[in-house]
Amino acid sequence: MENFSFYAPTYFAFGKESENEVGKLVKRFGGTKVLIHYGGGSVVRSGLLDRVKKSLDEQEISYMELGGVKPNPRSGLVYEGIDICKDNAIDFILAVGGGSVIDSAKAIAAGAIYDGDFWDYYTGKRVNQALPIGTVLTIAAAGSEGSPDSVITNEDGMYKRGSSGEGLRPKFSVLNPELTQTLPAYQSAAGITDIMAHLMERYMTNTTDVEVTDRMIEGLLKTMIHEGPKVIENPNNYQARANIMWAGMMAHNNSCGVGRSQDWASHDIEHELSATYDVTHGAGLAVVMPQVMRYNMNHDLMRFVQLAHRVWNVEIDFTDLETTANKGIDAFQQYLASIGMPTTFAQIGAKEEDIPAMAHSACYGNKRTGTIGGFVSLNEEDVINIYKMCL
Amino acid sequence: MENFSFYAPTYFAFGKESENEVGKLVKRFGGTKVLIHYGGGSVVRSGLLDRVKKSLDEQEISYMELGGVKPNPRSGLVYEGIDICKDNAIDFILAVGGGSVIDSAKAIAAGAIYDGDFWDYYTGKRVNQALPIGTVLTIAAAGSEGSPDSVITNEDGMYKRGSSGEGLRPKFSVLNPELTQTLPAYQSAAGITDIMAHLMERYMTNTTDVEVTDRMIEGLLKTMIHEGPKVIENPNNYQARANIMWAGMMAHNNSCGVGRSQDWASHDIEHELSATYDVTHGAGLAVVMPQVMRYNMNHDLMRFVQLAHRVWNVEIDFTDLETTANKGIDAFQQYLASIGMPTTFAQIGAKEEDIPAMAHSACYGNKRTGTIGGFVSLNEEDVINIYKMCL
Repeated sequence: MENFSFYAPTYFAFGKESENEVGKLVKRFGGTKVLIHYGGGSVVRSGLLDRVKKSLDEQEISYMELGGVKPNPRSGLVYEGIDICKDNAIDFILAVGGGSVIDSAKAIAAGAIYDGDFWDYYTGKRVNQALPIGTVLTIAAAGSEGSPDSVITNEDGMYKRGSSGEGLRPKFSVLNPELTQTLPAYQSAAGITDIMAHLMERYMTNTTDVEVTDRMIEGLLKTMIHEGPKVIENPNNYQARANIMWAGMMAHNNSCGVGRSQDWASHDIEHELSATYDVTHGAGLAVVMPQVMRYNMNHDLMRFVQLAHRVWNVEIDFTDLETTANKGIDAFQQYLASIGMPTTFAQIGAKEEDIPAMAHSACYGNKRTGTIGGFVSLNEEDVINIYKMCL
Repeated sequence: MENFSFYAPTYFAFGKESENEVGKLVKRFGGTKVLIHYGGGSVVRSGLLDRVKKSLDEQEISYMELGGVKPNPRSGLVYEGIDICKDNAIDFILAVGGGSVIDSAKAIAAGAIYDGDFWDYYTGKRVNQALPIGTVLTIAAAGSEGSPDSVITNEDGMYKRGSSGEGLRPKFSVLNPELTQTLPAYQSAAGITDIMAHLMERYMTNTTDVEVTDRMIEGLLKTMIHEGPKVIENPNNYQARANIMWAGMMAHNNSCGVGRSQDWASHDIEHELSATYDVTHGAGLAVVMPQVMRYNMNHDLMRFVQLAHRVWNVEIDFTDLETTANKGIDAFQQYLASIGMPTTFAQIGAKEEDIPAMAHSACYGNKRTGTIGGFVSLNEEDVINIYKMCL
């Protein structure tokens, strides 16, 4: 295990009707003039936005609104939000929505107290300070509600890039599993896939002696395997939604990723698909992830045997470890298909002819220097090979 | 899963030489006049105390010292510490030691800004405010480095009782596994047992649909099973110490205990042993815990079958689930014996004739009202029966 620091000071209010605590929480964490940030009409139609406003009203907290966040959130709206904050002395950002809304809110929070272009934070600069952020989560997926991370797509070049830093950890997050019950099955499955991806990216490590984090990741993966199909079958299964919601936060607050190298190649390879085709992030990951695993398998075969055996209950063939490892990846891919996720380029409308440009962008775009991936260092040719495996 | 709130804003500096960051961390969290609290001579002899002081000196932070904390920390020293804080305008408590030192520091921190008797906090009053606390951990065991809990023995009546509240969460904790390498095997084993007990007390729940926390607990228990024997065999195994140290924090910061009822009967039953015979907490737990499990087994047989199968790899006998469950408890008890822990009253010098008084104290002492345990409600007669099973 490597040295590390860990600091996750987000307050979580979890459970039924917890969104009614929003006003008190904003007050507790010092907000007096709030920008409520959200996406499309669903939070309006469901009455959630009204409940949030009522909770703020009860605490006599003033607010402005900025809706319109789209999946794979864009830089344009971020600039708009930053201007609103600067012009109106906003001192707290409240995100009401899923990972896209939260990530957009984080970008606004960072940019609102920064003199330069907020995009600097998405090309390597760490976010040490930002306006305080609170979230009301409506999709269990991104883990952004408890993480110091944000991903934004820059419309100038369509680069989808990530930022990180302690300034981006929400002060509080409201997690009411009921709010996720109206999600369509496809979005639920994409969220499940994203959560599993956050675990897999951490599992793919070159650090030895990481039993504690291995075991936590395995336990969380098993939770997803067990609970995921329940919400696909019955979207109103509160208890399964609740288990997934807490697993989604734990998967990405990094308590199971400390002290170990991580991979994130699948995310980088997927981000090009999202940027190019506006495909749902989780769906893109479902296509990419199993192929990245197959491509990297012989880098550390025993890690994949361990994954196959401990997580997917594959019986070990001691005379053929490679087959054992592959059976684990097969099981993962079958699981993803079983909850309705795509597994090929064709299913997400991705095209073979775009592969060279996407591989180049993944490895060289937006100040990158030729390779991606912390587990296996992948160059442009590797990424081309992986995309081709997805056809 | 039940509704819950979760807030664990402790900064962790983990790894080799991390104690050298103490000065900067005290400064970061606002300390200007520190009380360094510690136990016996080992932190002096090892040079740790000097390194801590040097780190404070480098930041020009002034400090006073109060040593002398004993295992099963006593109220007398707490009163002494409170007086020092009040008389000298101490604004930060730095605990250098194991759980006993940290718990004593927490009691001082709470009492230092309270007009009444600090013991009020150990008879039901929650600690919402206290002086800020930092810790430099030297034993992986109590989990107090990341928890809002403290346990103190009141010398007036020898009641060993717990307190809790957000005011008791350390602002930071320094976790350097090297510092635990000098621990004698018996103390290491007692720490391992305490960590497993924190997990088992949470596993014993009456809340249904808690897959995510079940799986996290199981993963952490498996970590302890895997790593524990390594440090008994070789105390200098840094990596095993590191895995245990993070598992010990995760076992008790409650991220794996949220949204579910918990038990804590074994702790309450053990505390009488510690109070009566000054036995090491973990050793007392090793004696008590398997018997509490046997006594409670038929309250929810399938929970014990799940534990046996998932954690102890017991093959399920579908025609005899009781035997399956018992094999899991047997495996736990054998594991504890294998790392050198006692399993009977005789081995810890406990006496049959003291059973009635201990059972009475556990159920009625210090304002208790007749029963203990959140999994099965145990009365005085039940506790007598359990103590007798330990003979």
